Amino acid sequence: MKQVFPDVPDVRFEGPDTKNPFAFRYYDANRKVGDKTMAEHLRFSMAYWHSMNGGGTDPFGTVTAVRPWDSVTDPMEVARIKMRGLFELTTKLTIPYFCFHDRDVAPDGETLREANRNLDEIVGLTKSLMEEFPTRLLWGTARLFFHPRYMNGAATSPDPTVFAYAAGQVKKALEVTKELGGTNYVFWGGREGYETILNTDMGRELDNMGFFLNMARDYAKEIGFDGQLLIEPKPMEPTKHQYDTDTAAIWGFLQEYGLTDDLKLNIETNHATLAGHTIQHELHFARVKGILGSVDANQGDTLLGWDTDQFPTDLYVTSSMMYEILLNGGLHSGGLNFDAKVRRPSYTVDDLVQAHIAGMDTFARGLIAANGMIEDGELPGFVADRYRGYQDGIGKQISDRSVTFTDLEAWALDKKVMHPASGRQEYLESLVNRFL
Amino acid sequence: MKQVFPDVPDVRFEGPDTKNPFAFRYYDANRKVGDKTMAEHLRFSMAYWHSMNGGGTDPFGTVTAVRPWDSVTDPMEVARIKMRGLFELTTKLTIPYFCFHDRDVAPDGETLREANRNLDEIVGLTKSLMEEFPTRLLWGTARLFFHPRYMNGAATSPDPTVFAYAAGQVKKALEVTKELGGTNYVFWGGREGYETILNTDMGRELDNMGFFLNMARDYAKEIGFDGQLLIEPKPMEPTKHQYDTDTAAIWGFLQEYGLTDDLKLNIETNHATLAGHTIQHELHFARVKGILGSVDANQGDTLLGWDTDQFPTDLYVTSSMMYEILLNGGLHSGGLNFDAKVRRPSYTVDDLVQAHIAGMDTFARGLIAANGMIEDGELPGFVADRYRGYQDGIGKQISDRSVTFTDLEAWALDKKVMHPASGRQEYLESLVNRFL
Amino acid sequence: MKQVFPDVPDVRFEGPDTKNPFAFRYYDANRKVGDKTMAEHLRFSMAYWHSMNGGGTDPFGTVTAVRPWDSVTDPMEVARIKMRGLFELTTKLTIPYFCFHDRDVAPDGETLREANRNLDEIVGLTKSLMEEFPTRLLWGTARLFFHPRYMNGAATSPDPTVFAYAAGQVKKALEVTKELGGTNYVFWGGREGYETILNTDMGRELDNMGFFLNMARDYAKEIGFDGQLLIEPKPMEPTKHQYDTDTAAIWGFLQEYGLTDDLKLNIETNHATLAGHTIQHELHFARVKGILGSVDANQGDTLLGWDTDQFPTDLYVTSSMMYEILLNGGLHSGGLNFDAKVRRPSYTVDDLVQAHIAGMDTFARGLIAANGMIEDGELPGFVADRYRGYQDGIGKQISDRSVTFTDLEAWALDKKVMHPASGRQEYLESLVNRFL
Amino acid sequence: MKQVFPDVPDVRFEGPDTKNPFAFRYYDANRKVGDKTMAEHLRFSMAYWHSMNGGGTDPFGTVTAVRPWDSVTDPMEVARIKMRGLFELTTKLTIPYFCFHDRDVAPDGETLREANRNLDEIVGLTKSLMEEFPTRLLWGTARLFFHPRYMNGAATSPDPTVFAYAAGQVKKALEVTKELGGTNYVFWGGREGYETILNTDMGRELDNMGFFLNMARDYAKEIGFDGQLLIEPKPMEPTKHQYDTDTAAIWGFLQEYGLTDDLKLNIETNHATLAGHTIQHELHFARVKGILGSVDANQGDTLLGWDTDQFPTDLYVTSSMMYEILLNGGLHSGGLNFDAKVRRPSYTVDDLVQAHIAGMDTFARGLIAANGMIEDGELPGFVADRYRGYQDGIGKQISDRSVTFTDLEAWALDKKVMHPASGRQEYLESLVNRFL
Repeated sequence: MKQVFPDVPDVRFEGPDTKNPFAFRYYDANRKVGDKTMAEHLRFSMAYWHSMNGGGTDPFGTVTAVRPWDSVTDPMEVARIKMRGLFELTTKLTIPYFCFHDRDVAPDGETLREANRNLDEIVGLTKSLMEEFPTRLLWGTARLFFHPRYMNGAATSPDPTVFAYAAGQVKKALEVTKELGGTNYVFWGGREGYETILNTDMGRELDNMGFFLNMARDYAKEIGFDGQLLIEPKPMEPTKHQYDTDTAAIWGFLQEYGLTDDLKLNIETNHATLAGHTIQHELHFARVKGILGSVDANQGDTLLGWDTDQFPTDLYVTSSMMYEILLNGGLHSGGLNFDAKVRRPSYTVDDLVQAHIAGMDTFARGLIAANGMIEDGELPGFVADRYRGYQDGIGKQISDRSVTFTDLEAWALDKKVMHPASGRQEYLESLVNRFL
Repeated sequence: MKQVFPDVPDVRFEGPDTKNPFAFRYYDANRKVGDKTMAEHLRFSMAYWHSMNGGGTDPFGTVTAVRPWDSVTDPMEVARIKMRGLFELTTKLTIPYFCFHDRDVAPDGETLREANRNLDEIVGLTKSLMEEFPTRLLWGTARLFFHPRYMNGAATSPDPTVFAYAAGQVKKALEVTKELGGTNYVFWGGREGYETILNTDMGRELDNMGFFLNMARDYAKEIGFDGQLLIEPKPMEPTKHQYDTDTAAIWGFLQEYGLTDDLKLNIETNHATLAGHTIQHELHFARVKGILGSVDANQGDTLLGWDTDQFPTDLYVTSSMMYEILLNGGLHSGGLNFDAKVRRPSYTVDDLVQAHIAGMDTFARGLIAANGMIEDGELPGFVADRYRGYQDGIGKQISDRSVTFTDLEAWALDKKVMHPASGRQEYLESLVNRFL
Repeated sequence: MKQVFPDVPDVRFEGPDTKNPFAFRYYDANRKVGDKTMAEHLRFSMAYWHSMNGGGTDPFGTVTAVRPWDSVTDPMEVARIKMRGLFELTTKLTIPYFCFHDRDVAPDGETLREANRNLDEIVGLTKSLMEEFPTRLLWGTARLFFHPRYMNGAATSPDPTVFAYAAGQVKKALEVTKELGGTNYVFWGGREGYETILNTDMGRELDNMGFFLNMARDYAKEIGFDGQLLIEPKPMEPTKHQYDTDTAAIWGFLQEYGLTDDLKLNIETNHATLAGHTIQHELHFARVKGILGSVDANQGDTLLGWDTDQFPTDLYVTSSMMYEILLNGGLHSGGLNFDAKVRRPSYTVDDLVQAHIAGMDTFARGLIAANGMIEDGELPGFVADRYRGYQDGIGKQISDRSVTFTDLEAWALDKKVMHPASGRQEYLESLVNRFL
Repeated sequence: MKQVFPDVPDVRFEGPDTKNPFAFRYYDANRKVGDKTMAEHLRFSMAYWHSMNGGGTDPFGTVTAVRPWDSVTDPMEVARIKMRGLFELTTKLTIPYFCFHDRDVAPDGETLREANRNLDEIVGLTKSLMEEFPTRLLWGTARLFFHPRYMNGAATSPDPTVFAYAAGQVKKALEVTKELGGTNYVFWGGREGYETILNTDMGRELDNMGFFLNMARDYAKEIGFDGQLLIEPKPMEPTKHQYDTDTAAIWGFLQEYGLTDDLKLNIETNHATLAGHTIQHELHFARVKGILGSVDANQGDTLLGWDTDQFPTDLYVTSSMMYEILLNGGLHSGGLNFDAKVRRPSYTVDDLVQAHIAGMDTFARGLIAANGMIEDGELPGFVADRYRGYQDGIGKQISDRSVTFTDLEAWALDKKVMHPASGRQEYLESLVNRFL
């Protein structure tokens, strides 16, 4: 097959002064930052759905994107071209991973069997592309929200035939992810929630979702899939409410349904802000609970109320993310997946490439900044020092859980408790700026 | 002591056609709705802090309220007048309960011992007022957010002396709540969160909060307090982030720290909307998890981003709340506490009284509407019917948890799965309107 | 041509106790409310784009709607079936008007000439349907946001060929609206704004938009179109920012570009809430400025940040709207256009019909409530009375604009200005409830 | 009088590598950036109300700030100490300007006359301090929102005695601002709006506000005040709705009431985001309309719904602001006023000083970045180039306003209009990053 993107050049590091829009200014894959290379830290991934399938549509407009396969009509042929295109683009961009939903990469079918057949063919092609190109699979997932059958959810559908179909679809997606050597598998419950609470039995739906994920976990073990299972929070959109609202909600869900040992989180920047949190908050919470798995690296517009999935170009976002990721000892089997789409008016292939460059450079700078903060030590030292009272005296007794209310009252009753120390927020914010 | 509010008349039911602004149009305490009277269903409560202490202030303006004690200067005398005023107002309004924070009702002190002494004196007065008036205590709580020492939280403070002081303060508040026959005790972590994540160790803070609540639970048992312990969600304000974000977040927290048997939730309407949820969502979630305890009955302005704590006058809000509460079999030891304040320009005592009347009438209509929906049966019947597929065939096997992914794939593989049934949202919304 | 919707029954008024889901419970077209019939007050309209073209799609899912023309493939034949379907549905529902965008009703073309040819054929059909059915045109408009050429705006495009094309398209849409007897013509600038301010020259874009609308006004006069020109506010979505943010922004725009005599506003409920306003606010502002033209009658979900375009079922929304409309002396040539779509899971034709019934009944009740408030007089009387101070003394001098700062200082210098009167917000909210 | 802040050192530029928290790292007053010094570009100002009066309070907590005058009880003596403290702090920080409300600096009185007397005394002191210190007045204003009389607005109050009092108060504030050599005077309508539309006559209120500002303008001219009059947008808070919502709303208001020649805007970052806009949007709009006057330099938290008034530490915010300000040819008589308050837990004087340093350094870097973008030319060149089509052919005819719809249709009718050029948003965002 001939090249899909023959005009896209190999993108290489040229340093901050380059004028070449197809070069990295900051991302230098082999540069050591701390004890690992940038490539080892960042583990970038391209999202098949946005980069290959995205057309620049929105609820008020049709496709703007101009792509090499626009004139091809056979869906399987389009699927083959796109998959090769993905391997080309990731290789040219030195992005080591990709992610996909089952129905992104191969056409759906009248039946699950037919859909599986289409998927199998593309999976075969993908395996042969993996011999030709260095790109590997970060994670696979199943698209359980696009088809009309999923209008009321998949595992939480009021219709058990939909539940059953979804189970079959996820079973296949797990198999395929294993076959392609995926290091993770992701669950995102796009419609696991409700459009109106008036017609909803939340207790039953949550129990069914818990059961579904237990079956999925069991099946993954059964087939020997040794990747990490991940679940992704989002509070709303497309539905009015989704159960996997944020990390704290999922933390409760995993505990209730016995899933804390087997599932971690795939956390998306824009989903965090839709839930009213910063991405650093979500990563920090997941980190301290030991469930930080992987990241969907994009950014939202906090003045807009929907998922804009923009390419990450904000240095505050990427440096705060890398700070938490470094404190987590890295993402381990996870990675930074660009779940991001070019804007509707950025319709050329050049835009697509330059958007990834922008994201990679912004994360490279974020990594350097975060590593700088940690090596410098003032910021993490301030935090550690702030809680130092818990190492001595009454603080230590509290830390040791060796006191009761009665003890503490006795200790406190006649003390004139003074101000705690200043939080120094403004100073800390300016301290962060030193590293940008 | 002479009457505090001599000009406030007794407020009585006069029916929907009355022109008397000091009469109920819909709240008829002894009217049976289903198998209980309105009074038994609704269990109204007045919030001491808003109704006695609130002055109409906001961050841009000083006190507007005109109150009988405005010219009194001795803080203990003001406290005595206000407490009598509360008993008078609740009695005139036939509100059976009140709620308070420790520092609402009595002046703080230089030390905890001194504050406790002030509190004890007012508690003594309160007990004697309970002999004179029918008003009872729905719940007590401790104000752990107003004093500078709590600027960084109480149980989550980085300063262990603050943690200790807070423990002593809650110990006393539990004792006092028991002494006054309170049927519940509430925890609201106004600053249990952070102002900036830059200086915060979330893992330690959450663990400390878990320990604090375990101690509180143990102490409540130790003193034989047999009321219900409650915890109240709010996502932000006053701090940037509070850990008790919403019911789902608290559900996770209670599980992690072994508190599910002992704590239920006190859910506030305006806190729900600040978290991006409807109040019905929060009540429904708590109901199906068995942790619906009590309600702070107010409403917010969903176009504003802060806690406006308005009196509840929206019939959709109150009817959806009463629907969930009826399905919960009532609030049991809980109640509907008007955690609501009159607007800044509603500065007269008349406004305060009429605001409570408005809230009580709106809940009375909400109760009638919700009961109507349940007795009519079409709405709950629709919901039950929507999931009926789970009672037979593959649906039953799913319900019985007797299937695996392999079974479900086999069942689904060759099915042409059709549309699930319509959700009929618009029809259901118009159905609700029939009962308003 | 055979009936498109043979199974949809004629929908008639049967009163509040009917169990027939295809009957009106409150909308009784010929019932007098005040001095006009319900039909005269409400002037309902069906939106072609949602009701005929809408498929239940969202950014995460494909079509769910099941419609009679699903198996027809020829676009012109589909267009013919749908237009007949629209006349049938409106007639069965006794909706007197419809609205459309040019490209809704007829397929686009390779050139404007070809598109115009398609449009002309459908316009011919529409005229003949108008002889057969009573449905009339409330307004026409041009779809200047769907095609890729409009990705950066139409009148505000940085590309003058797009500006020119848009001019040609609007010219035709004006002609066609006149030909079909439309009583208004609407401008909605879906992409008249920007995606990123980084590439935008706002001054030039606004000036171009002003010029474009001047040309449109001139052309409308030239062809003798005597309907009302309308412009519709929306703050964002699809773009990050749209210039026609809200009524106040448009009011400034109309003044600057000399359009206040010729344009009024078409105000949409959900656009109002996206702008952070209530619909009553937007209608009130337009009313007092004399630019309230017509209404896109839907409702949003104020907990969601995008345009959900739900059918109006909230009685507070409809009664507050009708209150302003009654104070405006009605909508004159305007109407209540259901710019609303059934939810994705409400995919049947029955849902589509029942959604309109729900909207019509909710507006009928809103009209009755609003008329009740005005006839009762207490609410409008309270407002009038609140400003009565401006009729005498210093107030009258202020009203007469016969004072200066020096006069007012002299008057005020030694006065101990007291509290203004209470705003009585809680009482007024409960007063409104009496009429629901 | 002895020094108020003897422990605050003089803050000087020490360069980016200093470890001194009381030094500037980037703000180097005399460094030339383009053709002006940093000091000439930035024109910093301290806000008396936050820096002298702010106590760290919020609706849930009392004062935390520890200040030198905490033990002084006489209000006039406190006022004198604070004013000297302001001059000391600004001088130590090399902040050339300050801003104040009348009631910030001197105690209110029983009557306007008494309040004026207090104010006169402090104004006298201020003039003598101006002889001792280099600090000058950027702008004065009147606090028309704090006192109960203003609960329903000042110029928009339903009570004409309040309108009259406000006129007298503003008259005096104008006089005092002139006396102190203020280069601007600001109107901020904190309660010029409504709490509930149910009791509001928006038409009358807006007309009264227009009249009020006309009188103010006339009086300013009468007394020969040659500073710039400014008006400040904010959409809500403290009231539910404020009329001066955003720049576009004020632009309409100024046109309607004949004020475009005399009033410009004082634009605040956090008010912009509360209105759903970026600060760059608001500055850009004001710039192209010729009404950009001055700036309240702070930042909000876009995940919170109230005015947090944080010190500006975000480089994207400050660089985008300085970009617009440079394109505006500077702020002329305006300046960058730190309308910002330290966080509640940042309660020390050190925090107050370091917060200003953080803000000044962040603006210095923003200035350097913005100037870099302009000197580099790629970003402004891209924008200019994007609209180049309007310089030739049909584009020029459009620019010349020499075409009609008929001409444009004729031109467009048979053209196959292609894609406009890519907007290149992602590339432009990464381009901006080069300058940070």
